[in-house]
Amino acid sequence: MILSRCLYSKVNQLFISQLERVLGKEAVKVTTGEAGENLYDRRRHIGRIPDVIVVPKDVGQVSAVLKTCNEGNIPVVPFSTTTGLDGFTSTPEGGVFVDLMSMDKIVEVNTSDFNCTVEPGVTHEALNQHLHATGLWFPGDPGANASICGMAATSASGTNATRYGTMVQNVLNLEVVLSNGDVLYTAGKGRRPRKSAAGYNLTKLFVGSKGTLGVITQAAVRLYARPAVCSVGICPFQTVNKAIEAVVATLQCSVPTAKIEFLDAITVAACNHYSKLTLVESPTLFLEFHGNSEAEVAEQASLVEEIFASNDGRQFTWCHAPEEQKKIWASLHSAYYAILSQKNNVKGLRIHFSLPTSALAKQVAEARKDIDESNIFGAVVGHVGDGRFHCIFPVDESNEDEMKSVQKLSDRIVKRVLASGGSCTDEHGIGISKRKYLENECGEVAVNTMIAIKKALDPKGIMNPNELFAKN
Amino acid sequence: MILSRCLYSKVNQLFISQLERVLGKEAVKVTTGEAGENLYDRRRHIGRIPDVIVVPKDVGQVSAVLKTCNEGNIPVVPFSTTTGLDGFTSTPEGGVFVDLMSMDKIVEVNTSDFNCTVEPGVTHEALNQHLHATGLWFPGDPGANASICGMAATSASGTNATRYGTMVQNVLNLEVVLSNGDVLYTAGKGRRPRKSAAGYNLTKLFVGSKGTLGVITQAAVRLYARPAVCSVGICPFQTVNKAIEAVVATLQCSVPTAKIEFLDAITVAACNHYSKLTLVESPTLFLEFHGNSEAEVAEQASLVEEIFASNDGRQFTWCHAPEEQKKIWASLHSAYYAILSQKNNVKGLRIHFSLPTSALAKQVAEARKDIDESNIFGAVVGHVGDGRFHCIFPVDESNEDEMKSVQKLSDRIVKRVLASGGSCTDEHGIGISKRKYLENECGEVAVNTMIAIKKALDPKGIMNPNELFAKN
Repeated sequence: MILSRCLYSKVNQLFISQLERVLGKEAVKVTTGEAGENLYDRRRHIGRIPDVIVVPKDVGQVSAVLKTCNEGNIPVVPFSTTTGLDGFTSTPEGGVFVDLMSMDKIVEVNTSDFNCTVEPGVTHEALNQHLHATGLWFPGDPGANASICGMAATSASGTNATRYGTMVQNVLNLEVVLSNGDVLYTAGKGRRPRKSAAGYNLTKLFVGSKGTLGVITQAAVRLYARPAVCSVGICPFQTVNKAIEAVVATLQCSVPTAKIEFLDAITVAACNHYSKLTLVESPTLFLEFHGNSEAEVAEQASLVEEIFASNDGRQFTWCHAPEEQKKIWASLHSAYYAILSQKNNVKGLRIHFSLPTSALAKQVAEARKDIDESNIFGAVVGHVGDGRFHCIFPVDESNEDEMKSVQKLSDRIVKRVLASGGSCTDEHGIGISKRKYLENECGEVAVNTMIAIKKALDPKGIMNPNELFAKN
Repeated sequence: MILSRCLYSKVNQLFISQLERVLGKEAVKVTTGEAGENLYDRRRHIGRIPDVIVVPKDVGQVSAVLKTCNEGNIPVVPFSTTTGLDGFTSTPEGGVFVDLMSMDKIVEVNTSDFNCTVEPGVTHEALNQHLHATGLWFPGDPGANASICGMAATSASGTNATRYGTMVQNVLNLEVVLSNGDVLYTAGKGRRPRKSAAGYNLTKLFVGSKGTLGVITQAAVRLYARPAVCSVGICPFQTVNKAIEAVVATLQCSVPTAKIEFLDAITVAACNHYSKLTLVESPTLFLEFHGNSEAEVAEQASLVEEIFASNDGRQFTWCHAPEEQKKIWASLHSAYYAILSQKNNVKGLRIHFSLPTSALAKQVAEARKDIDESNIFGAVVGHVGDGRFHCIFPVDESNEDEMKSVQKLSDRIVKRVLASGGSCTDEHGIGISKRKYLENECGEVAVNTMIAIKKALDPKGIMNPNELFAKN
C-alpha cells in the first residue's frame, strides 16, 4: 500500500485571513521574508521554514485551525517544547506550524485517584513543581524538560521507566483534535478509569502517533506516591560487557530498581568535564532505589550489591543526600550535551534501541566495539534497566565524508540490533532519520496496516506529513 | 459514521469445497441439520448456528480460510475456549466459526527475557504448568481457564492485575491474520523488545479488538518471577462501604498488594455452600501479598492490617499453606457458578465496571443498595484492588418480566457508573450485551474513529460482524 499524498495547496492571503479571523491577528505569524527567518528558530526545528506559525489558546481554536487547513489542503505540524531530537517539526511542503505552548493549564489534579490532566504547554518539571505539596509525582523524565503531551505524542520514556513504565503505561486519556477538526476523547470525555475494554484502545494508538493522526490538546496521566526513601548508587566496571551483564542479572532477579542508567567511559569523562564531577572514568552504572521504608530500600540495595559483586562490580559509591542525588541525575540528563561539547560546531546524530534482556549485553558491547574500531568519536549510553541504549555521534553536518561514515556505522549497528530481535527506536518515535528502518523492523503488512489507519483518520494526509512513512 | 455492512453471501457447496481443499475434509464441519445441532454446543455459544465450523492447524490455514471468506463475503467468527461470558461467538448472519483449539503449541519460552509465545489453544493454566520448573509464571487469571490469545483478544485481567497489570500491559507482540489473509506481526516478526516506538502501537490496538480486526494466531506475553514468598489474608467487614474504603486507603498508600478481591455477604454465603468453606458471611476482602523475602511480605501485610483496622476491619485470618491458599482462590474463581447455583435453571447476566479509585466505594455500595431495594437476587463482587467490580444476576431467560426488571436495574447501575467517570466494561470487551453503552461511554467521535479503523482493516466487514458497534 502506498501512502499517496494529496497535492498540497500553497498558503495564500485568503487562507491567512481565515486563520486570523479564527485566532486573532496576533496569534498568526507569517514567516516569509527576513522577519520570518528570525521568528523561525533553526536551532529548534529542521528543514524549510513553514509558511505560518499559529498560536492557539484553546482546543476550540486548534479545532478551527485544523478544519481550515483540512478544507484548504494545507499541511499541519504541531509542536510544543521542541526538545525532541528526531526532527518531528520538519515541513518540507510548507504549511502551518501549530505552537501549543500557550495552552499551559494544569486542568485538574486528582490526588485520591493518582492522576492529573494537563495541556501541551505543561512540562514534566512544571507539573512536578505544582504537585510538590501533594506527595505525588509524575516520574516520566526524558533528558530535556519536555511537555507531557509531547511525551505522549512521541511515546517517551526516561530514566524512571524501569519501575514506573513509559508513556504507554502512564497515559490514561487524551483529548485529540482530528484532521477534520473533530475533538476526540480517546477514553471518553472526563473519564479516568484504571482500565477499560470498551471498543478499541484509542489511547494507546495515539501514544507515539506523533501528530500524524491528530493534535493532542490534553493528556490525563497517572501519578505515583513520591517514594518515602530514595537511595542512589554508582558502580564502575572494568568492561562494558561486565556492566551490562550485571544489569541483566539484576533484571532477571526482579529487583524493583527505579533506575539503572549506563554511561560508557567516554561519556563519564565528558560528564566529569561538563558537569564538574570526579567519577572514575570507566563504564559505569547509576542506580536509584525507591521504597516506603529504609529497610525496603536497604534490602533492594544489598541484593544488587551481591549481584554486581559477582560481575566484578565491587566499588559502589552511595549518595543519600537529596542534593547530591539531584546533581548526579542532572549530570546524566546533560550527558548528551556533555558529549557534544567534546567537539566544536557539531550536532548530535543519535540512534536508540530497545532489546530483549538476553540480547542487551552483547549488543551494547558490540556497538561500543564497532565505534572503537571505526575511528569515529561516539558514545554509548542507555536506560539499560529498561532494556534500552543509545549511541550518540557528534557530527559536523557540512562534512560529507564524515556524515557518510557515521551513517554507515549507524546502519551497521541498527541492522545488528534488528537482527537480534530488538527495536530500532525505543523512544521519540521513528523520526525522519529512521523512517527507512520501519518496514525492516515491523514488516510490510504492519506498515501497510499503519498506513491504512493513517488514511482512515487523515484522508487528505495533512497531519505532520513528513513523519513515519517513507513511502510516498 | 455508519458501519455499513456488505450483503453477506450464503455459504454454498462451492464455498465448502474450497474450504475442504485448503483444510482437508475432516477439518470442515458443516453444521446444518440435526448433526449440526449436536455439533454446535449451545451451552458455549449464543444465537443461531453458524453454517460451518472449521478447525485449522496452523497460521497458513487460518490465512487461507480468511482469504476464502473475504472473497466470498462470508462472516468469520474465531473462538478458542469459549469461556467468555459476553457472547462473542454469536453469528446472526451465519458464516464460518474458526475453532482455534487445535493450534495449541507453546512456541517458545525465553526464560532469560521473561517472555513466551503461545498459540490460541494454550490456556493460562496449561502455560503455567509448562513453566513450573522455570521459576517463572504468567499471572493473568480470569475466573475460567481461558486461552491466552483469547484473553488478549478480549483484553482480560483477572485477580493479579493489581500488581502485574492486565493483558494491555502484558502482551508484547501478536501474530494476527487480517481479513484479506495477510499475516501481521504487530511488533515485527519474532521481536520481543521491552518497548518500541516504531510507528503506531498495533499490539495495543489488537488487544481487546475481539476478532473484529483479525484472528490472533500467536501471542508473545510477559512472564514474571514466581514470588519466593506468598501470603493470603481474609478480612470480613460490617458494611460494603467500610470494606471498599479500606481498599481505597490501601491503594492510596501504594502498598504493592498482588490481589485484593471483594465478595459481598450473599456471595460469601454462596461460596460457603458451593465450595464447602466456613467463612463469616459478611462483606469480605481477600488479599494476597508477594515478595522476595518473608520480611518484605510481612511489612506489606502489617501496613495493610493497620489501614484495615482504622476502617473497622480487625478480624484478619491468614493462610500460609499453599494448599489452603489454592483452595481459597479456587473458591473465588468459582464464585460466579456459586451464585448461579443459588437458583435453578438460570443463566448469569453480568455487568462489570472499572472506576477511578475515589468513586469506587460509593459506586460499589450504591450498586449493592440498589439491588437490595429492587427485590432482585444479585451479587456484587470485584477485583477491587484494580478499581473494578461486577454485578451478577442469575436470571431465567424465559421469564420476560424478570428479564425486564433485571435489565432496568442493570441500566440504572451502568448509568450511574458512567456518570461517575468510570467505564462500563472492565474486561471481556464490550460484548453484545453492552454495545449500546459504547457511545455513551466513549462519545460519538471515538465510536466514529473506531468504525473508521474497522473499515480500514476489514473493508468488507466480515470479521466478527456482530461485535462492538451497535450501528448498522
